[in-house]
Amino acid sequence: MKGAWITDQGGGDITATLRVTRRLHEERTPYQYLEVYESPLFGRMLVLDGAVQTTEGDEFAYHEMLAHPALCTHPAPRRVLIIGGGDGGLLEEVLKHPVERVTMVEIDEAVVRVSRQHLGTICRRAFDDPRTALVIGDGLAYVRKTEDRFDAVLVDSPDPQGPAAGLFAPEFYAHVARRLTPDGLVAVQSGSAVYQQDLIRTVRRHLGAAFPLVRTYLATVAAYPGGLWSFSLGSLGRDPLMADPAAIAKRIGEFGLRYFTASRHHAAFDLPPYLRDEVAAG
Amino acid sequence: MKGAWITDQGGGDITATLRVTRRLHEERTPYQYLEVYESPLFGRMLVLDGAVQTTEGDEFAYHEMLAHPALCTHPAPRRVLIIGGGDGGLLEEVLKHPVERVTMVEIDEAVVRVSRQHLGTICRRAFDDPRTALVIGDGLAYVRKTEDRFDAVLVDSPDPQGPAAGLFAPEFYAHVARRLTPDGLVAVQSGSAVYQQDLIRTVRRHLGAAFPLVRTYLATVAAYPGGLWSFSLGSLGRDPLMADPAAIAKRIGEFGLRYFTASRHHAAFDLPPYLRDEVAAG
Repeated sequence: MKGAWITDQGGGDITATLRVTRRLHEERTPYQYLEVYESPLFGRMLVLDGAVQTTEGDEFAYHEMLAHPALCTHPAPRRVLIIGGGDGGLLEEVLKHPVERVTMVEIDEAVVRVSRQHLGTICRRAFDDPRTALVIGDGLAYVRKTEDRFDAVLVDSPDPQGPAAGLFAPEFYAHVARRLTPDGLVAVQSGSAVYQQDLIRTVRRHLGAAFPLVRTYLATVAAYPGGLWSFSLGSLGRDPLMADPAAIAKRIGEFGLRYFTASRHHAAFDLPPYLRDEVAAG
Repeated sequence: MKGAWITDQGGGDITATLRVTRRLHEERTPYQYLEVYESPLFGRMLVLDGAVQTTEGDEFAYHEMLAHPALCTHPAPRRVLIIGGGDGGLLEEVLKHPVERVTMVEIDEAVVRVSRQHLGTICRRAFDDPRTALVIGDGLAYVRKTEDRFDAVLVDSPDPQGPAAGLFAPEFYAHVARRLTPDGLVAVQSGSAVYQQDLIRTVRRHLGAAFPLVRTYLATVAAYPGGLWSFSLGSLGRDPLMADPAAIAKRIGEFGLRYFTASRHHAAFDLPPYLRDEVAAG
């Protein structure tokens, strides 16, 4: 299949089409259709139900920006819950912090298994870290019944269509808020800033029902259609805009990050006027 | 053609594919194949040789970011030269400043004619402004022979393949530097930050041969493949990083901008570490 193309089905009226040279894996799991491709531009790519989830070439932008703004806003996160994120890229970022335990709840064991096999440059040794506790199960069911408390919850989900729908519901955020310690925060991917502005508004509204403070921020994720991606953060108290850049720089100094910096932390929350008007209105 | 798609041919191993509902214009000019489409996501789009140049829906990001960083770094730009930019969107941004004269040199009269006819929301009344001097001709030939001096030169060109190749050559930048006043700057679109990092390095090297100071900055332009676009700036003296945010905010306060802000000016030059390493190395 040299010179073949795959077209990301995620975007509605805009799609990203990527040249691929080889399909490394294909599997119909109980939850989704899972493929791994090799591409000249981004290296290996995980594709779920036709939508590119992560690639070796640009995963760092998405995973760093889902992990570090929330974790660097919290004064000292020790216990972190990840919902989704079966490729391990987010887990790997979280483990760079001096955490005691990271619980990861992924609904589809195939994503973990296939990522460990084919996407070792993304998950690295994260699944073998003694601080990692992997739970295969439904994220909403988990937060309903767990009695554990977390300093931060990070939600790395696909779009709300399909198995992830429950992770965008008000009930989910309400349970998450109850499972957080007093300085706790949740960060979620809240969709494309180009073609899912409705989703961003919905996420902000649902977060706002459970958290006193809601902030939306942006990162560029090249392999996603439209390129510009949003994340939203609900906080019980700490405001990411009040985080001290010098303290952030010190905390991440040895992490070897490729996208997130102390200055980018603040810049990411500084939405361009057209988006501020669109998104904050809801 | 309801539900038809056009695929941007610009990107090599990545393309952006956009749903279109109607073709409003089609013409083989002496320089390129020109089309105008209507799309549900971005409104009307100008397409040259199969590559999306500008759209009603996201033109402001590109045009504001090509115009205002250079113009806000200059203490008081009065005379500005635009090379290319036949759709008029950049011209319209420049005319928001208290300039005396904007000379625009566009090689293809068809781009101006068709944009005035179909893309009125992009060029607005810019071509009718008494400060506008439109020259139909080759940009390289123009800077070779003109004896005028400019405070800023802005280069809004397609990729170096095709009629714009000369606008990326060292000779072009050398002529531009000689036509600038002592505080003068040139800003150019320097290609995708996702798949044209070679081009960014080349532009920086060529600019560096003519200017003592070279800076690269980024903006997200959703309709372009990969989303993340680079611009590079050559300066005879003024450093954009030294521009005072309060002074910028005052200058652009009444412009009604949708992307560029005083804080974004500085954030745009703050490249993520992975790009700083890639691009600044050349």
